[in-house]
Amino acid sequence: MKDHHPDILEREDQQGITTLTLNRPQHFNALSEEMLTALQAQLDDIKSDSTVRCVILAANGKAFCAGHDLRQMQATPQQTYYEALFHRCSHLMQSLRELPVPVIAKVQGLATAAGCQLVATCDLAIAAESARFAVSGINVGLFCSTPAVALTRNLPIKRAFEMLVTGKFIDAATAAAWGLINQAVPEQELDSATQALAREICSKPAISIARGKAMVYRQQMMALPDAYAHAAEVMACNIMDPEAQEGITAFLDKRKPNWAAPT
Amino acid sequence: MKDHHPDILEREDQQGITTLTLNRPQHFNALSEEMLTALQAQLDDIKSDSTVRCVILAANGKAFCAGHDLRQMQATPQQTYYEALFHRCSHLMQSLRELPVPVIAKVQGLATAAGCQLVATCDLAIAAESARFAVSGINVGLFCSTPAVALTRNLPIKRAFEMLVTGKFIDAATAAAWGLINQAVPEQELDSATQALAREICSKPAISIARGKAMVYRQQMMALPDAYAHAAEVMACNIMDPEAQEGITAFLDKRKPNWAAPT
Amino acid sequence: MKDHHPDILEREDQQGITTLTLNRPQHFNALSEEMLTALQAQLDDIKSDSTVRCVILAANGKAFCAGHDLRQMQATPQQTYYEALFHRCSHLMQSLRELPVPVIAKVQGLATAAGCQLVATCDLAIAAESARFAVSGINVGLFCSTPAVALTRNLPIKRAFEMLVTGKFIDAATAAAWGLINQAVPEQELDSATQALAREICSKPAISIARGKAMVYRQQMMALPDAYAHAAEVMACNIMDPEAQEGITAFLDKRKPNWAAPT
Repeated sequence: MKDHHPDILEREDQQGITTLTLNRPQHFNALSEEMLTALQAQLDDIKSDSTVRCVILAANGKAFCAGHDLRQMQATPQQTYYEALFHRCSHLMQSLRELPVPVIAKVQGLATAAGCQLVATCDLAIAAESARFAVSGINVGLFCSTPAVALTRNLPIKRAFEMLVTGKFIDAATAAAWGLINQAVPEQELDSATQALAREICSKPAISIARGKAMVYRQQMMALPDAYAHAAEVMACNIMDPEAQEGITAFLDKRKPNWAAPT
Repeated sequence: MKDHHPDILEREDQQGITTLTLNRPQHFNALSEEMLTALQAQLDDIKSDSTVRCVILAANGKAFCAGHDLRQMQATPQQTYYEALFHRCSHLMQSLRELPVPVIAKVQGLATAAGCQLVATCDLAIAAESARFAVSGINVGLFCSTPAVALTRNLPIKRAFEMLVTGKFIDAATAAAWGLINQAVPEQELDSATQALAREICSKPAISIARGKAMVYRQQMMALPDAYAHAAEVMACNIMDPEAQEGITAFLDKRKPNWAAPT
Repeated sequence: MKDHHPDILEREDQQGITTLTLNRPQHFNALSEEMLTALQAQLDDIKSDSTVRCVILAANGKAFCAGHDLRQMQATPQQTYYEALFHRCSHLMQSLRELPVPVIAKVQGLATAAGCQLVATCDLAIAAESARFAVSGINVGLFCSTPAVALTRNLPIKRAFEMLVTGKFIDAATAAAWGLINQAVPEQELDSATQALAREICSKPAISIARGKAMVYRQQMMALPDAYAHAAEVMACNIMDPEAQEGITAFLDKRKPNWAAPT
């Protein structure tokens, strides 16, 4: 699987950190059918690959991702085709959420439309200060409906609405202030900041992260009593894991826990 | 319909932008029964008026709106009367959401109780830096329950809670930082900033905006898979609209789209 | 009830303000079984004590609360024990929400794991500028699942996620900017700021606050029409309360309302 579509999507695995790099820079890394296929294949592979502890979603070129491939979309002006395409893209976004490991968007340049949705969908995001974000579909008369699903779950509603009806860009500092990304860093620190966050995550037990990530999103829309019932159960399972037992023992013994390092 | 209650609610239609101006300044534009009737009539009219592309909700005088008309409320101290009144006001708020066009609150002076709720309910809001916001019902022993519905859907919960139990005012800069409004501008720029945003919206196809606005609010409380299924369907319909087909073609041809301008 | 476990949990009642002070500073006020029992007993008592108008949850020592008592937890490594423990703690958190009076967290020092959850769960929170917050369970391999329920209902999702998977600390200014607390104040003003907020709340009618607090949380996860129907009904009941009738009359007469002061 690992060299599926090596030209448009690069994959590098290093000490538990898998970096997927969108590599169609001349097309602003648009989510063409081929790119969707390549990305989905990698996510499906990663989902059951226990050596992966954290994913970084990166991109080559001046854009992080410009959303759907408009030229390709224009070629098949049929509603059934579009429905299938948007469902497929939505499935990809949900696959990011269903991975047992955190996904960090590492954003440089432009992230627009479904590209902005990718950023919103990743569990974490770090961007270069020069990065810019927009849900710009409205500029061609195509309201960014599926991106809005992710955007409105990241931003206060009036800010999301303004971006959606105006298509306007926000810079990385604004994106960080509004909660679309975790952090904006100088361009030359984008690599090191993303790596540092990924390594931090790799230093925690995979089972605890996997249980937690699934729980966080599952409980989000539940009523409070249901959310607590679910979380309490997850936590009781988690504490029975050998990793948690070792972690607690190590803490009480004032030593570092003896956990398996990423390979 | 257009000169319904011309004294307390002004309406101006200009190139797709409909401005409704609360005009009972000596009563701080309180939402009396007459004002509720006048506003509801205009919203019902606008809902099916395809020449309207954007609504600005403005006000004359020192207050944007001070909420319900306490003197009028005091005159009929019957629970059935109050129930009908609050349901009617809640219906008005939901009518703002159900319009096919965005509504921008243009806020000067005080916006309190149901007046603050109006701001929270509008899709977008721009305020003069001197504007101030409060849900002050608690100061007369009447917790702002219906305003809380709108407020808690705009602000982080602890901030909404503090405003509700203390009745304290926040200034426009704070309102912008917290997400209650989009922008705070110097008083002399309130007109131009609001007009610029409205014109920006008018420059997009009405059908795309209408589909998008309805979708944004409808998907908001859905679980993620349902939200995506709905959004993907809306987007597939939207892209079949002639406006989107023209928009995409124009973009690929590197020219401006040839869309109908507001009349 | 009032001197239940006087050693680990202090209670002081003064003019309607009940201060509960975690008092096991040498153990960083960990939520041991005894502390959970003591807290729950006080909350159960306060729930039906009409002289209480506001609760302040405070702590003695260098930590506000460090979460569960890991040593105690380690002693009974059985899943059924843990399940019961987390359900009990979750019940405590929900009891804070079900009190008819607002609860203010007064935070000094560290608030970690379930201690951070306590802060997130309180209706309001004021912290010393030197206070620090983390959901640090992941550092011992125990993802803070039940704290995540409260945290994700206070913070934008990416910020909550980052805190949960890294265990990193945020300072009080950041907590205020993100909405985890209402305000960060200099250490020497923590007492006076918390007292001022509590007194402000005591100056409002208890019935209005009680109706409002219950309504705010109940409507939060409802669809908009249901939320408005509920809020309109609550508000119609509230306005029939003698306190609201007096409040409105006093306002119209330009005098202070004649309400019962806390005793």
